[in-house]
Amino acid sequence: MSWQRLDEHCRNLHALDHALSILGADEATHMPSGGGEARAASVSLLAGMYHEQASAPHIAEWIAAARREELTPQQQVALTEFERVYRNLTCLPSDFVKRQTAVNMRSEQAWRKLRAANDWEGFRPLLEENVVLMREEAAMRADALGVQPYDALMEQFDPGNRAAAITPAFDALKAFLRDFLPAAMETQQRRRAQNPLKPFSPPFPVEKQSALGLAAIKAIGFDMEHGRIDVSHHPFCGGVPDDIRMTTRYRADDFITAFMATLHETGHALYEQGLPRELAHWPSAKARGMGMHESQSMFVELQIARSAEFWEWALPLVNEHLGGLDNWSPDDMLAHINTVEPGLIRVDADEVTYPLHIILRYELEQALVSGQLQVRDLPEAWDTRMQDYLGLSTISDPANGPMQDVHWPAGMFGYFPSYALGAMMAAQEWAAMEKAVPDARQALRRGDFEPLNAWRRENIWHAAATAPTPDILEKATGEPLNADYFTAHLRKRYLG
Amino acid sequence: MSWQRLDEHCRNLHALDHALSILGADEATHMPSGGGEARAASVSLLAGMYHEQASAPHIAEWIAAARREELTPQQQVALTEFERVYRNLTCLPSDFVKRQTAVNMRSEQAWRKLRAANDWEGFRPLLEENVVLMREEAAMRADALGVQPYDALMEQFDPGNRAAAITPAFDALKAFLRDFLPAAMETQQRRRAQNPLKPFSPPFPVEKQSALGLAAIKAIGFDMEHGRIDVSHHPFCGGVPDDIRMTTRYRADDFITAFMATLHETGHALYEQGLPRELAHWPSAKARGMGMHESQSMFVELQIARSAEFWEWALPLVNEHLGGLDNWSPDDMLAHINTVEPGLIRVDADEVTYPLHIILRYELEQALVSGQLQVRDLPEAWDTRMQDYLGLSTISDPANGPMQDVHWPAGMFGYFPSYALGAMMAAQEWAAMEKAVPDARQALRRGDFEPLNAWRRENIWHAAATAPTPDILEKATGEPLNADYFTAHLRKRYLG
Repeated sequence: MSWQRLDEHCRNLHALDHALSILGADEATHMPSGGGEARAASVSLLAGMYHEQASAPHIAEWIAAARREELTPQQQVALTEFERVYRNLTCLPSDFVKRQTAVNMRSEQAWRKLRAANDWEGFRPLLEENVVLMREEAAMRADALGVQPYDALMEQFDPGNRAAAITPAFDALKAFLRDFLPAAMETQQRRRAQNPLKPFSPPFPVEKQSALGLAAIKAIGFDMEHGRIDVSHHPFCGGVPDDIRMTTRYRADDFITAFMATLHETGHALYEQGLPRELAHWPSAKARGMGMHESQSMFVELQIARSAEFWEWALPLVNEHLGGLDNWSPDDMLAHINTVEPGLIRVDADEVTYPLHIILRYELEQALVSGQLQVRDLPEAWDTRMQDYLGLSTISDPANGPMQDVHWPAGMFGYFPSYALGAMMAAQEWAAMEKAVPDARQALRRGDFEPLNAWRRENIWHAAATAPTPDILEKATGEPLNADYFTAHLRKRYLG
Repeated sequence: MSWQRLDEHCRNLHALDHALSILGADEATHMPSGGGEARAASVSLLAGMYHEQASAPHIAEWIAAARREELTPQQQVALTEFERVYRNLTCLPSDFVKRQTAVNMRSEQAWRKLRAANDWEGFRPLLEENVVLMREEAAMRADALGVQPYDALMEQFDPGNRAAAITPAFDALKAFLRDFLPAAMETQQRRRAQNPLKPFSPPFPVEKQSALGLAAIKAIGFDMEHGRIDVSHHPFCGGVPDDIRMTTRYRADDFITAFMATLHETGHALYEQGLPRELAHWPSAKARGMGMHESQSMFVELQIARSAEFWEWALPLVNEHLGGLDNWSPDDMLAHINTVEPGLIRVDADEVTYPLHIILRYELEQALVSGQLQVRDLPEAWDTRMQDYLGLSTISDPANGPMQDVHWPAGMFGYFPSYALGAMMAAQEWAAMEKAVPDARQALRRGDFEPLNAWRRENIWHAAATAPTPDILEKATGEPLNADYFTAHLRKRYLG
């Protein structure tokens, strides 16, 4: 009986979530500008209904009662994940949540203006408020979950991730990159001296880019019966597993950005479309977390779409749609796509320098959580690490230093590691896949993506949220997180 | 306090309604085909949540308590309409509603196949079940609302409409059409003998039709900041007042159908976009009902867009977009658009014969409600009236007789009159508007729609659902429903 009540409860939340997902995608793609105010009011009420229903106190009794019922193994797994979600949702007093939400909203709004004005002194007191509340939150969550405070924050984004397990991998990667980055840039310089970058011939009409993108995502396995692609200001992958709303953005003077963004979102989309349909309304059948999601987009973007094998297939396709590439080789294209260039901005970083941006934030936010670092000392701490990791200074430019990202003013601490973990897990998954599918690279050459998809479908997509992130990774690849796969990948691509 | 609780309750329902409206429009325009199952599940759960919240028993106490509070006149009007909606929603036992919903769904699904097979004998027992339950429903609603059974059914679609008030108008219209229809057809024949119909020059590319439609709806007053137009299988006007989702459908061999459909939906859209923003989440600020809504679409389609003055402005616009009309006059176009031709199918009927299709159904469904007519006698009763009103027989073709419409198998009795009332009210509104805006036709000639819109905005749109349909009509036009305006309109257009 209690299982049944929980099942119905999950169906109701699923219906609200469906509405919120489609409304969110619609807002970014089709909604007329004047619809924003009414939409915001409705979405905020629906989200409030969702939260109220999801965190209702009687659910705790239903869970306890369902535990005593005879359940199938699959139902037990679903119940365990449901309980984890419920505990995370209800372990903070609602007064605290309201106070924190108000502070975060105010900081985030102010941040947009203050960053544009490069006004660190205006921003500092606001971020200090975020940090005070974040420390309170971390302490309460740590207490409820029985884990370390920073781990309790990461748990919101990547369930099961623990700093004790991640830090060694990040340290190994950091040590590797110290020598690797200059070596990769030297190799790049030498290659370019021998083979100068070939120029593209814009313009690339949007209709042609759009047809190219459509042909590519269909070939890669995106199911157009259960999804569509539109245009939005920032590319994203939204919607629901049966109805994915993916977007990209076109520029007539450059097709690479839109094409790679489309492929990145396709990685997210395949994950969602590949989730199990059984008990689809339970949390256990939803995508695992931010890191695992990022590993799926990175699998397509970094492992597949930046490889030489992919471009043996893709180059004729691009040429067919856009023209002008008759005398190009895959290497000519890769030289454009796989450029290494240290910079101040995380979201613009290449795959070699990107992890250093993340490790910097990972180290600093741990110090902020523990209290070893105070907000007033952040610009200097940031600058010291940027100089050390990338040889760049931000001390006179806090807008592109500690004011760079929306995450902290929005109250999201513990999120950053997911990005780098995604790239590392993607490399580890690729290696495991290649062991299981020895002719994967051959398949890629002929544009046959199904063997690659089949491995992810079985090992990642169908696992959904039935276990913590590290367990899914270990079961899929045969070992815990190991930086060696990503470093080997970088070595091969940038020095090989 | 109770007002506040009701206000919050209305906001919650409004948020759910917003989601259902946008999801509905999305389903018909952008949703990929494979998204239908998940969408249906979510929409049905959201609609269930809506119904459960809207009909909760404690609302009755809140209404009673709010009545004792100090309210502004506007709040009192809102409370009255809220109570009317609540009473209509809760006056049937929920067991009955479930039973009736199941029967209606089964009949409607079977009807699609049985109509295609022209299988009256297969359909008859299903419709008999619909009618039995409809009579029960009418009796219960009549009891709860203190009105006649058929009036209680109409109340669901057009609050305030009573057969005693409508029948005389319909009778007058029927009597008028008996002589008018042959006269109009004779005139049409004579005109065509003098001026043969000029042929169009298809194809009309969809992009050009779409640009024409956009130019026309913007000129007429559709606010693109708060709405958009897409393509769907059947044209409709959905969405919410701040975010109208209107659709049309294009054929390359004919631009008239899409153009007139677009203008019809624009009439609906202007009504929704013109509703008051104050207390917008209360029922009193929503569109009045089906008849009033239809009068707004008919105002644009019949009164404006089938007039000679409109085509003085529209002809150059159409020619600019589609070409091929250099030597056309407005009358050449009107000869195509305002064709009279009796036929079996209601939805294909012209504005002269259309009311006869409605009056036939209005008379038959009243007899079905009262028990004077049984389902088994329906084919003969239908045929008798069709022969009498339009000179056509359906006795050997029940698919195009009493099996023609989805309304009855879907359980919608009392809906049909709204369609003809819409056309009659539109003519009456036009006459009142022209009295208040003497140069309305001059404005139309130069494509200035604002004086015409301003009158409707003040008298119809802003009135929203603050009073029953007949009261709004009488206040706007200075008199109760009067068929003379519509008959004068027809006489002028088809004999003048």
